Amino acid sequence: MEKTVLIDCEDSTGLIYKISKIFFENGLNVEKNDEFVEKEKNRFFMRTEISGEADFELMEKLLRRDLPKDANLRIIEKGRKKKVLLFATKESHCLGDILIRYYSGELDIELLGVVANHDTLQPLVEKFNLPFYLVSAEGLSREEHEQKVIDLTLGLNPDLLVLAKYMRILTPNFVSHFDGKIVNIHHSFLPAFIGANPYKQAYERGVKIIGATAHFVNNHLDEGPIIAQDVVKVDHSYGWEELRNLGRDIEKIVLAKAITLAVEDRIFVYDNKTVIF
Amino acid sequence: MEKTVLIDCEDSTGLIYKISKIFFENGLNVEKNDEFVEKEKNRFFMRTEISGEADFELMEKLLRRDLPKDANLRIIEKGRKKKVLLFATKESHCLGDILIRYYSGELDIELLGVVANHDTLQPLVEKFNLPFYLVSAEGLSREEHEQKVIDLTLGLNPDLLVLAKYMRILTPNFVSHFDGKIVNIHHSFLPAFIGANPYKQAYERGVKIIGATAHFVNNHLDEGPIIAQDVVKVDHSYGWEELRNLGRDIEKIVLAKAITLAVEDRIFVYDNKTVIF
Amino acid sequence: MEKTVLIDCEDSTGLIYKISKIFFENGLNVEKNDEFVEKEKNRFFMRTEISGEADFELMEKLLRRDLPKDANLRIIEKGRKKKVLLFATKESHCLGDILIRYYSGELDIELLGVVANHDTLQPLVEKFNLPFYLVSAEGLSREEHEQKVIDLTLGLNPDLLVLAKYMRILTPNFVSHFDGKIVNIHHSFLPAFIGANPYKQAYERGVKIIGATAHFVNNHLDEGPIIAQDVVKVDHSYGWEELRNLGRDIEKIVLAKAITLAVEDRIFVYDNKTVIF
Amino acid sequence: MEKTVLIDCEDSTGLIYKISKIFFENGLNVEKNDEFVEKEKNRFFMRTEISGEADFELMEKLLRRDLPKDANLRIIEKGRKKKVLLFATKESHCLGDILIRYYSGELDIELLGVVANHDTLQPLVEKFNLPFYLVSAEGLSREEHEQKVIDLTLGLNPDLLVLAKYMRILTPNFVSHFDGKIVNIHHSFLPAFIGANPYKQAYERGVKIIGATAHFVNNHLDEGPIIAQDVVKVDHSYGWEELRNLGRDIEKIVLAKAITLAVEDRIFVYDNKTVIF
Repeated sequence: MEKTVLIDCEDSTGLIYKISKIFFENGLNVEKNDEFVEKEKNRFFMRTEISGEADFELMEKLLRRDLPKDANLRIIEKGRKKKVLLFATKESHCLGDILIRYYSGELDIELLGVVANHDTLQPLVEKFNLPFYLVSAEGLSREEHEQKVIDLTLGLNPDLLVLAKYMRILTPNFVSHFDGKIVNIHHSFLPAFIGANPYKQAYERGVKIIGATAHFVNNHLDEGPIIAQDVVKVDHSYGWEELRNLGRDIEKIVLAKAITLAVEDRIFVYDNKTVIF
Repeated sequence: MEKTVLIDCEDSTGLIYKISKIFFENGLNVEKNDEFVEKEKNRFFMRTEISGEADFELMEKLLRRDLPKDANLRIIEKGRKKKVLLFATKESHCLGDILIRYYSGELDIELLGVVANHDTLQPLVEKFNLPFYLVSAEGLSREEHEQKVIDLTLGLNPDLLVLAKYMRILTPNFVSHFDGKIVNIHHSFLPAFIGANPYKQAYERGVKIIGATAHFVNNHLDEGPIIAQDVVKVDHSYGWEELRNLGRDIEKIVLAKAITLAVEDRIFVYDNKTVIF
Repeated sequence: MEKTVLIDCEDSTGLIYKISKIFFENGLNVEKNDEFVEKEKNRFFMRTEISGEADFELMEKLLRRDLPKDANLRIIEKGRKKKVLLFATKESHCLGDILIRYYSGELDIELLGVVANHDTLQPLVEKFNLPFYLVSAEGLSREEHEQKVIDLTLGLNPDLLVLAKYMRILTPNFVSHFDGKIVNIHHSFLPAFIGANPYKQAYERGVKIIGATAHFVNNHLDEGPIIAQDVVKVDHSYGWEELRNLGRDIEKIVLAKAITLAVEDRIFVYDNKTVIF
Repeated sequence: MEKTVLIDCEDSTGLIYKISKIFFENGLNVEKNDEFVEKEKNRFFMRTEISGEADFELMEKLLRRDLPKDANLRIIEKGRKKKVLLFATKESHCLGDILIRYYSGELDIELLGVVANHDTLQPLVEKFNLPFYLVSAEGLSREEHEQKVIDLTLGLNPDLLVLAKYMRILTPNFVSHFDGKIVNIHHSFLPAFIGANPYKQAYERGVKIIGATAHFVNNHLDEGPIIAQDVVKVDHSYGWEELRNLGRDIEKIVLAKAITLAVEDRIFVYDNKTVIF
């Protein structure tokens, strides 16, 4: 049996020893191990992939006994596919990229389907025999629309919500239901060009590099913990539509990377930042 | 004889023809030629390296006759070294890099010396037998200090002022004296992290990429036309000092690139953006 | 009417003037213009996008009259979609990426279908309502199989052949039928790791960067003119399968870029190298 | 007291536990810890920064008792500056960059001086008040010249030899004297363009990216374990001298990075590859 153990807590002497002792005395092999201490905040992060036959309940009890009270402990079975729900609006580049990766087996997930506020992408999604949940906002208040999306999502019970160019701003109410589970792709190299139409902003500013940012969504627009970023160089010859087209390639690569990191349980979030092993 | 001709003006039909006709009929070879039309603003940019024996005064008159009234025309003799004045404070990485490039002949400039508000870098500068102009700000108002620097600079009459980590904010008065001639290196990937201590800001924000920006200085702090940018990937394990150290490598490369572009007369500035051939 | 004119020939004085004169006197607007002179080989390259109502036959005759005898002249109507034929084997990442870009309208081409030597990708291709031409190599000699592929391709008459992970080595006979029209993606940063299993080679060598190369196919395996390359940094923690997975993202981006450059008529090939505007 | 402990050995169950137990029971704090298991070769690598007052001799004995017989164990005092000897010929970009970093305190090393086979760089080195050891090859056989360099180097007893564009090929005899201690910068993205004049080779091949590689020197030219690599994008407009000039920036950054990794004891070498923490 294989499990991934993620621990973060206040740092103190002997933590690695105490934790590895519990693994060892329960007959578990350490397949992969990473630690990091954030010195400024005195915070310890450890991610360990273990294998072997063991009493995992006992192991968990011993870890809780020996770790500091404030410790966050996650013990996750490897091999169980994460249930992922996609959200999209009209643009196909990120969604299509995820669908192809899913189709080819590159993304080791269970795809629950796609929630959208427009029907533009329905034909694409149905090519892949996946449910397409159209929740049109027409005639609804923002709250009403969002409540329908929340209800639908709660019913599907995803492990991860991926906003693949979902052009609706989520309220704190939405976020509170799925805290730490929502990944967004922002079409810009945050924190530059926060907000609408960043490629137009980038064009106006005359930047020589554009980028994209995948981040967890929190209650502050475009300010959640950053998971992955990438950039590409540009010059004066790019109009803003060309910047946008070029940006789409970065967006899809960065979003796919963030999804992979999330479903492989590689990400810690602490103090609005990520630690990623 | 070799000259570089830079033209920017409102776009209209036949500009390339009219200009190349003048070069051809004056017996000039086109060694290198670049044009660009900024469609959104209907602006034409052309940079041509020409060679040959010709009546350049006549050529200029013909160009002025046939180009639109608003045209900016620069005709620059190749081979005359640009006079460059450096400005620094205490940090040596950009200054040292420029000095080594100058020493090795890589930067084809005439270095007038270094202006500094501290004496920290004096021993380094003097190793290279260059004048070190110490203008201490001690006991002076900001205006008094800046006036001394302006007077000194006017006396040296540089073609280009390079702020190689000069930690003083320039007033509009200063800028107005050397408009379009001041290159600064900003220790950040603008427009992210404007202002003080950007590496600390980047660390706090948890970005996965840091960068640097070389730009012309205008009257809006950190908002002048961008000349060059570059970035490097980072992760959670970098403390802010490490981000700063890593950033220094980018800063010096980006600043050296901007200086080269400027002294080779490759940069147009229009509408707070650069066109670079 | 809009056309793209591509000229390459021996360099001589006044070429730009002569060419722009013909455009001007035929009442054509120059929308975009790029030139380059390869000094070492004294070769002139020019690509111009022109618009306007004109006698294009006359224009072509004038160009041929005034250009050197050895000049290559291509005058291409803008707006006519290039006919593209894809070739694949079993891997879906490049093929799927092209299909999604085609579906979203990002690739402005007419897709003739997919030729494959295995049926693995048939379901994927048929999702997009495109012809899937299975030419199995079973029971055939290499020559027999290739002849069937040549006959099929000749019948479809594509402007461009894209090898999207087509794992068959093409003979000079094949190449001679479609010279200059075949784009391949090589899963390596050429000229490093020529030949089979480059990610395994890269792993064994312990490189810190991997890459991919799109190139035109000539008669020397992996040695055709390079169109586009990109790379990504790696470290010791990547096993060779991980290098391969990471490489797939680069492969698809680089191949899509090469296709775009080819169908937009931006590429010159000369002396086994490309000049790209 | 602070030490860095580096262990590599065959992997087996409980290694982290056994090692961290020894640290813990000797009252040592783990400041930073990294492990990696190379699955294909079943090799365990661990680097730990420890602090505290302890009987380090006892700690080492316990480690040797509990680790596999084949284990490589290095226990290095932090704070002792590494003695570094530079080797150069005529080019100043890498040497100058190291000198400036040394001058500014960025490189935390003791610089023993510069060995050169030409006197070109003597004035530069002497600006920094460092010994310049000229060992001219004139009138000497290759063996005689190298023996003089070996003798000189042995007398200076450096921890690290840095070939900063030293254009002499080292014999196995030289390497055997300083095995694992020689860092070279290769002006190419290895394994592409092995051997002489790689920028000319890159130009002829028409690559779209150039790079540089820092590696340990072994007895096979350009085939030692790779420490660091970086690249930059280029296009058809770069002549080979421009490729070389651009390459110099990458060379100096990559070499400085490799030096830093080496003097901070972050590098393991195993099976001609590096593991770097």
